[in-house]
Amino acid sequence: MHTIDEMESALRNLSAASNFSFDIGLRVIKVVYTSRIPRHPAIVNDRLTKDDGTRLHCIHFPFTDLDKVCEYIAQRVKNLKGKTVQFTSTHQDSEACVKLIRDTLGVKMERVNDMTCHVKGTNFLLNNILDEVFVYDHHNVDCRYFFQTCLNSPHDSVFPYVLVNVGTGMSIVRVNGESDFEYIGGSHCGGGAFFGLAKLLIGSADIDELLVMAEDGDHRKVDSLVCDIYGSDYNEQLLGLPPDLIAGSFGKCSNNDFADQVKDDPEYRKDCIRSLLLMISNSVGQVVSLVLNNEKTNRLFFNGFMVRNHPIIMRTLSYAINFWSRGTLQAHFLRHEAFMAAIGGMVLGKERLEKQGEVNIEHYSWREHYAGCSDLGRFVPRRPTDAAFRGEVLELDCADILMRPFPLLSPAVEYDPDTVDLNSDLAAREFWLTIMEESVHKMCTKAIESQAESPTAAERADVVAKKYLEQLQLLRDKPFAYGTCNVRNLLDLREQIFQEHEFDDPFKLQKKLENDLAVRELPKVVAKLDSMDDARERLAEATKGLLAGNVFDWGAKEVVKLMEGEETFTFQKAIDVIPERPWLHDSLDEFLDETFNGSHKSIVVFVDNSGADVVLGVIPFAREFLKLGSQVTIVSNLLPALNDITYGELEEVMAEVAQRDELLKRSMTEGTLKIMHSGQGSPCLDLRRIDSKLCELVLRDKVDLVVIEGMGRALHTNFNAHFSVPSLKAAVIKTRWLADRMGGDIFSVVCKYEKNQSNPSQ
Amino acid sequence: MHTIDEMESALRNLSAASNFSFDIGLRVIKVVYTSRIPRHPAIVNDRLTKDDGTRLHCIHFPFTDLDKVCEYIAQRVKNLKGKTVQFTSTHQDSEACVKLIRDTLGVKMERVNDMTCHVKGTNFLLNNILDEVFVYDHHNVDCRYFFQTCLNSPHDSVFPYVLVNVGTGMSIVRVNGESDFEYIGGSHCGGGAFFGLAKLLIGSADIDELLVMAEDGDHRKVDSLVCDIYGSDYNEQLLGLPPDLIAGSFGKCSNNDFADQVKDDPEYRKDCIRSLLLMISNSVGQVVSLVLNNEKTNRLFFNGFMVRNHPIIMRTLSYAINFWSRGTLQAHFLRHEAFMAAIGGMVLGKERLEKQGEVNIEHYSWREHYAGCSDLGRFVPRRPTDAAFRGEVLELDCADILMRPFPLLSPAVEYDPDTVDLNSDLAAREFWLTIMEESVHKMCTKAIESQAESPTAAERADVVAKKYLEQLQLLRDKPFAYGTCNVRNLLDLREQIFQEHEFDDPFKLQKKLENDLAVRELPKVVAKLDSMDDARERLAEATKGLLAGNVFDWGAKEVVKLMEGEETFTFQKAIDVIPERPWLHDSLDEFLDETFNGSHKSIVVFVDNSGADVVLGVIPFAREFLKLGSQVTIVSNLLPALNDITYGELEEVMAEVAQRDELLKRSMTEGTLKIMHSGQGSPCLDLRRIDSKLCELVLRDKVDLVVIEGMGRALHTNFNAHFSVPSLKAAVIKTRWLADRMGGDIFSVVCKYEKNQSNPSQ
Repeated sequence: MHTIDEMESALRNLSAASNFSFDIGLRVIKVVYTSRIPRHPAIVNDRLTKDDGTRLHCIHFPFTDLDKVCEYIAQRVKNLKGKTVQFTSTHQDSEACVKLIRDTLGVKMERVNDMTCHVKGTNFLLNNILDEVFVYDHHNVDCRYFFQTCLNSPHDSVFPYVLVNVGTGMSIVRVNGESDFEYIGGSHCGGGAFFGLAKLLIGSADIDELLVMAEDGDHRKVDSLVCDIYGSDYNEQLLGLPPDLIAGSFGKCSNNDFADQVKDDPEYRKDCIRSLLLMISNSVGQVVSLVLNNEKTNRLFFNGFMVRNHPIIMRTLSYAINFWSRGTLQAHFLRHEAFMAAIGGMVLGKERLEKQGEVNIEHYSWREHYAGCSDLGRFVPRRPTDAAFRGEVLELDCADILMRPFPLLSPAVEYDPDTVDLNSDLAAREFWLTIMEESVHKMCTKAIESQAESPTAAERADVVAKKYLEQLQLLRDKPFAYGTCNVRNLLDLREQIFQEHEFDDPFKLQKKLENDLAVRELPKVVAKLDSMDDARERLAEATKGLLAGNVFDWGAKEVVKLMEGEETFTFQKAIDVIPERPWLHDSLDEFLDETFNGSHKSIVVFVDNSGADVVLGVIPFAREFLKLGSQVTIVSNLLPALNDITYGELEEVMAEVAQRDELLKRSMTEGTLKIMHSGQGSPCLDLRRIDSKLCELVLRDKVDLVVIEGMGRALHTNFNAHFSVPSLKAAVIKTRWLADRMGGDIFSVVCKYEKNQSNPSQ
Repeated sequence: MHTIDEMESALRNLSAASNFSFDIGLRVIKVVYTSRIPRHPAIVNDRLTKDDGTRLHCIHFPFTDLDKVCEYIAQRVKNLKGKTVQFTSTHQDSEACVKLIRDTLGVKMERVNDMTCHVKGTNFLLNNILDEVFVYDHHNVDCRYFFQTCLNSPHDSVFPYVLVNVGTGMSIVRVNGESDFEYIGGSHCGGGAFFGLAKLLIGSADIDELLVMAEDGDHRKVDSLVCDIYGSDYNEQLLGLPPDLIAGSFGKCSNNDFADQVKDDPEYRKDCIRSLLLMISNSVGQVVSLVLNNEKTNRLFFNGFMVRNHPIIMRTLSYAINFWSRGTLQAHFLRHEAFMAAIGGMVLGKERLEKQGEVNIEHYSWREHYAGCSDLGRFVPRRPTDAAFRGEVLELDCADILMRPFPLLSPAVEYDPDTVDLNSDLAAREFWLTIMEESVHKMCTKAIESQAESPTAAERADVVAKKYLEQLQLLRDKPFAYGTCNVRNLLDLREQIFQEHEFDDPFKLQKKLENDLAVRELPKVVAKLDSMDDARERLAEATKGLLAGNVFDWGAKEVVKLMEGEETFTFQKAIDVIPERPWLHDSLDEFLDETFNGSHKSIVVFVDNSGADVVLGVIPFAREFLKLGSQVTIVSNLLPALNDITYGELEEVMAEVAQRDELLKRSMTEGTLKIMHSGQGSPCLDLRRIDSKLCELVLRDKVDLVVIEGMGRALHTNFNAHFSVPSLKAAVIKTRWLADRMGGDIFSVVCKYEKNQSNPSQ
């Protein structure tokens, strides 16, 4: 019996669901739909609103549950009757399935092309999910998953790539562009041969059972190896083939004795299943390698039900691709490949609707909604459970904007936002997981404070804490659960869980309080700078102020101690905290030299915290550049994250300061001072995903200085980023751990100015 | 129980056998050895002797007979103890086999490299057996076998070629030269997978049983076809794949109901075996096609126990190669591929002996000894029989000379000796088989006459007639039994059977008689020509005489009637038989024009019959050219065939005529008149296999006219041959059938002169 609870946790938000698409397979069915969800503040048409958002739900369930799933959907979705539902099918009896869906849901069923859907779905996920792609290294026991991003820089394209689908058979498709693909090869040896022969040989076609058997089996008892054929005196030099290479699959089985043993001995049955698996995966690997011999891409993605995150299959396919291509090709896998065809079906349906005036999901960026994804959605290979309903889920949220790699990233160096990879850096992972565990209760206190009027706040905060701690535990076991484990993901997940439980912005009140305080103090700070005659000295002082502002941070434990420990932790006290020069990283002089040599005529500043940081640190710094005749754009987050200022808050702050400062008011009116948002909602900054409007602006305004401020944006991420224009990375180290890592002390200063780095040898 | 008789007919000539080599396979063993045999007159060191010849024996027998075969050999071979025997093995338990051979024969066993042996053996057979290679066209019910020769012209090389061995696994080797080869690919899917999985699935690994099942099965019940997956509305344009293409082998078997059916229903078991066969052969075809994508050869030879002349496998492999290569490659098969490794082993052993001073078999040409080959050796695929010993045999005779393509063949046109292909020309085949059947008793009479002193002659002649008629019956059923069926083969086979029964030259006496008669008449014929003043008229008359001489032929029924009908059929009477000009083909004037324009300064004449033909036709014709200052070489057969003059006989004749004619005597002394032999022993002339000494001579002497005389050499063969120098084809049509075919009458004359035909458009 399925419990409604289990289905509910997979098939969520059905009441406002639409755009259904089904992918009907032999054993599993995937259904995809979009729904409207209540969401935190967002920007629509340049106005701050509290609005609904769009979420994409992808659910994968056993074929046998189709009737129950259809009934469940039919009972909950409003206005579904008469709508068109896209489907693909590789099921032999797809007509019966289609009839069931059509009759239960009362919809029109439109068959869409399987291959087109796979391509559309793959394009969608490659464009929207960072770390969608990985290579699998079985022999690296610490870290078997190595994730890759197709769109690291504005110069990257996901095309061309090659998609190998291992289903009943195997097909190889070269994808040249969004809708431009060609079938370049295939084979009749695939999952059909594996399951069909397994069924005939041992009476089971259950993939989980078979793969467990294969893991345990020893193919050398079944296959003829090169050394079996050529004898113990075989000389490897002759053919260049290793002696333990399989010369002939099942080569030992035609022997009478052997065949009798197999019937009786479960060990031999395991050996046979392993041999069968290797026969198929070697065949796939060989044909793919040979077909790709002349292809100019190493972007080789495997999908299909034979592959689907099964370690033994990924291992054998990776081996075969490497072997047959003589190391020139590498097998890549996709974390969410199960959903490609169903997502592609929905994309096709939406494209058709777009022609009728609806919005195309491909025109927006989407974000993986970790908090709503099941284990598989988070890429944790798992063994079967006893759960009655084994639905597995991927959810994505529409960003309502299009995000692109930041156009000023250097084309000469591959961009990786993260300074530390928590998958491979075990010490760093331990530190961050512990920090996150310790922080959750403090966060929950803030969250409850932010909704003092809500009687459910405390209860919801408890659930948040429990869920987040569970997730952190999951990451201790399987650090690859979100792709590359990094600080960004840990923080994003926390935000998502808070939002999932209606805490849209736990620091809301705190931020308001500090912004108001800082705005009132701004004239004093500005006056002090204005009183200085020398422009260079003024800018030096403003830069020191930029750093002092960065001391204020509710995200850093050491600072929270300071801020909570005294009645008022003033801006002047923060300036006093900044150590004497030379700083840990100190290229202030070079930065000033270049500025007064006429550079930096158009600058963009990625800001960090609310309150003193942005108001008393960033704004006076920007104001000095305005005096020098430069254009300035201040870039905040779009969405809330800790006490970081959001675009909505920045708008309010700028309106306030404009009333108090004539230069700022005039600059804003004239457009030499602008505010923008990055599109993000994280204490970190991922320059692979920047609001396309900001991307257009930095090109249009010929930005020649990128300033990145704060620990999350300039140290945890982007510390090693290279730009095609000069950049200034400015932050104060506020955690003991990072100070130790960077060879400094608490409150050490990083003021790292770098000229054009298109040529990395500079 | 094996009868000694059965073993005796396979393992022949053991008493003088040496150079043993074994190829030990999983199910069959191949043994190869050479032996000395008594033989018809031969040329050794330019002297006519009656000598022994060397024969190569290749025998293929079931693995289970190894002990009996070894005992049989041990009992019969003299001086075997302590010799070295080469072997290759792909048997899992080769050590036990090797021990058995070593201990029973008392020999040293030397393991030689499997791949080297395959290459050496293939090179040997490609170089020595015409029509070794064929393509298989299952859908051409009249003629499924199309034979090819690798060495058609002096410009051809057998290299490079690609050898695909489908044994337990599959390997692809590119062969660039005699000992230069490289492994370029392979696969684990081959015979091992076929037999191993078949054994596990249905309990049998018997190839004959399995192939019969596969012939009867329907894989569409087992495999998922493209149309099964994409549904009935599948659009072929999308992927470019036909709807009945196998998308996934065994794709329908994972279904529970199906698996149960297979257990109980023999029909489904057949379907599974067919599916398995197609899975393997498609896989082999695909991998080979992909590996050869960049190879610059279409010489693609399949061998290995999975291939071995099995029609269904050749059919599916041919289909797969064509499909996967998109028609750019064609699968070729080898008639005697079973023996490659064993022959190669012997070649390697002989090469080692050569270093110790023995003769290398690769330095000589070899001829397929049809009369000693079993069905398989003659390439007749057969179903298993009840014979106790199922040995199958190939025999080759050493020519003791090296034969090469005639160097004056035009490089611009592919050479095919045969004017008529009896495989595809059913009417011609019927005519020739009937002619041969009818002729055998006349031939036997001549043979008995030639050995009047022998008391066993009549009995032996009866056996010859019986055997030859049996062979002709076999050819009616399976015309591809010797490769391309043609007049040459029918005649060669008859010669071989006579020789096998100690009739080394049935027309010996007849030829002697006629030569003596003609020699005595020569002065008269010469005097008549010498009496003519005009050189051009003289050459015209001599050419007419050349044609008149060709009327004398014991091979033509119509002429035999003439010759036996009257007391003396004189040369003058033959001249009278020649019709008035213009002849059926008449370029006499052009021939004369060119001669008297200064061409034809070095001529070679391929002669035909003994007696008047060569003595009164060819010699006076040659004598006219000697008068014109040209060099002349008269080329006869080396070995007896009908009443054709042999080299030994020609030597005698020339000695006689020299005593009677001063000009001839002087020319012979000065070397302007020479005699040579072609190396052949057939009424036809195959210019692909000419004694290399003659090949060297025609180049050294700058031969600028090739004269080919007689029906067998100029009409049945070579009528369409193109040369790089002028040629004259001269013959009288002496059979009604050929006259009808050529649009003439009996005794119609062909006098076909062609200038340099290197450019076929001339």
